[in-house]
Amino acid sequence: MREKAMQIALDAMGSDSCPVPDVEGAILAAREFGETILIIGDEKRVKPELSKYDTAGLKLEVIHASDAVTMGDKPSLVGKSKPNSSMHIGMNLVKSKNADAFVTAGNTGAAMTIATLFTLRRIKNVKRPALSSIIRVMNGHTIIMLDIGANTDSKPEWLVQFAIMGQIYAQQALGLQNPKVALLSNGEEETKGNQLIHEASELLKATKMNFVGNIEPREMLEGNADVIVSDGFVGNIAIKTLEAMGSALLKLIRQEIKSDLIATVGALLAQRAFRRVRKQVDPFEIGGAPLLGVDGVVIIGHGRSNAKAIKNAIGQARMAVKGDVIQSISNGLKDLAD
Amino acid sequence: MREKAMQIALDAMGSDSCPVPDVEGAILAAREFGETILIIGDEKRVKPELSKYDTAGLKLEVIHASDAVTMGDKPSLVGKSKPNSSMHIGMNLVKSKNADAFVTAGNTGAAMTIATLFTLRRIKNVKRPALSSIIRVMNGHTIIMLDIGANTDSKPEWLVQFAIMGQIYAQQALGLQNPKVALLSNGEEETKGNQLIHEASELLKATKMNFVGNIEPREMLEGNADVIVSDGFVGNIAIKTLEAMGSALLKLIRQEIKSDLIATVGALLAQRAFRRVRKQVDPFEIGGAPLLGVDGVVIIGHGRSNAKAIKNAIGQARMAVKGDVIQSISNGLKDLAD
Repeated sequence: MREKAMQIALDAMGSDSCPVPDVEGAILAAREFGETILIIGDEKRVKPELSKYDTAGLKLEVIHASDAVTMGDKPSLVGKSKPNSSMHIGMNLVKSKNADAFVTAGNTGAAMTIATLFTLRRIKNVKRPALSSIIRVMNGHTIIMLDIGANTDSKPEWLVQFAIMGQIYAQQALGLQNPKVALLSNGEEETKGNQLIHEASELLKATKMNFVGNIEPREMLEGNADVIVSDGFVGNIAIKTLEAMGSALLKLIRQEIKSDLIATVGALLAQRAFRRVRKQVDPFEIGGAPLLGVDGVVIIGHGRSNAKAIKNAIGQARMAVKGDVIQSISNGLKDLAD
Repeated sequence: MREKAMQIALDAMGSDSCPVPDVEGAILAAREFGETILIIGDEKRVKPELSKYDTAGLKLEVIHASDAVTMGDKPSLVGKSKPNSSMHIGMNLVKSKNADAFVTAGNTGAAMTIATLFTLRRIKNVKRPALSSIIRVMNGHTIIMLDIGANTDSKPEWLVQFAIMGQIYAQQALGLQNPKVALLSNGEEETKGNQLIHEASELLKATKMNFVGNIEPREMLEGNADVIVSDGFVGNIAIKTLEAMGSALLKLIRQEIKSDLIATVGALLAQRAFRRVRKQVDPFEIGGAPLLGVDGVVIIGHGRSNAKAIKNAIGQARMAVKGDVIQSISNGLKDLAD
């Protein structure tokens, strides 16, 4: 564990409402963690925002970026077309060791492309970097899912690498002991799964990982495994289905309660319980999840992030740096390659 | 539309608590729909169950089956090993035109195998039968998803057939006008999707169907399309994720309310609203969904079905027969083949 002070670069131009929640998140993080936060973005927009707060004693620096990636930018073009974006600058700070990690709530595909092809590039032996999602499931258990969207039509060996990277992250940054690794599948039995799952399963059995086989969505939400591995197409649909069902159900409950006066009174009485529910399912409590396989800590938060989410994403970056995740992944993949 | 009286065969040995909910469901259906229900199962268990109810004036017949498929039976073995199961007998009644449809809440994989390989067999030109799920989404809108588990590693042409079968079912049995067909994908844009989605998309564009492109889980739950087409592996994970998230969230809400006295009182006041929520997300309100592509109407319900679910599954079978779904699929696939 590294305990020295660190510098975390934050994309001020990331979130949908940037730079407002991004800057406030930086302040909350500087206050809570005591680390230096490098706020990267258009200084004409960042500095006025920053001046609204009392930042005395906080380690905050503004680094100007003349350009910014938007949510509408095409990932395939933005790497080349905006070399001075806050994402490029932030990731290059990590590359040059002037920052320990980079955090953004911006365009995920763009972050992936800029990291992989234009700045940090891949850790040696990594075939494909993966996007992950860290979610809290039943009983407060935390799991990491990957790949959730970077790679469609994955090959079995890529899934093995996702498993290794996820397992290392779970252990080093999430503090899970001997994390259980599982393949997201349409059934627990070994006969279940598609061709990709069958082949990846055989390969995973041959590793030293704590591979527990196939897992179905229900058991995933019960926390029966810690690292949930899938192809990016399947993982993306799974995570989006989780989110969509969660909000649809909460919306339906709100609608039905509102349409009924007595229920409205009841819901007022139950509001503390509902608040606890929301807190448990709130993705902003986690804040962000790593882009795994690129040669530097990159944490990606949701576009809709609020200040708390940004702060928690910075916290996630801090744990990844403390856990020396990049070096561990590098070693882990070297061991596999040997 | 066929309006003559029909005979619907019901597997009395299907549900997890069989024959109790199955028999009661048959009675509810005979009463509500006025059709003849052929109750198929071990008469030593079915008749005593039936005698608990006043069935005067209802068109109910018991047909003995000396064997039954269990949830533990291997689909690959049960077709041959239990030729006198209630599933075999029920499907053969449909094949010999002594029943118009067959309904079971039993082992889905076994029903698929027995229908496809041992009794009804495929409709001409069908490459692969598909399992479907009919769910109610926002604003009471009904959608049909397929394939949800019969075929992993689907080929693009299979997906086109799933789309045609789903569209015909939506139109003829669910009463949806000019149903919108979409491919479940990781993004709405045409560039999103895996290889299978890209290829299926090209083929679907060339048909006369109302194909609206890719759909994400959120838009699916908002009812933006009526027929959601996917590979069986992906569809199975999507439907199981929906179910798992729904129950996990409701469980969490219950837990948090219970742990708080004031909230418990509040929830009592709100209970009518919660009941309406539960009714809207309750799969038993739909009851069952068709096995599409086999040469006869087969409706499969959930193993945990209660009597209401069985009754609704029989209602689903009735709509499929009235809508002449099998003949329409046969015509639809012939047109495609021409």
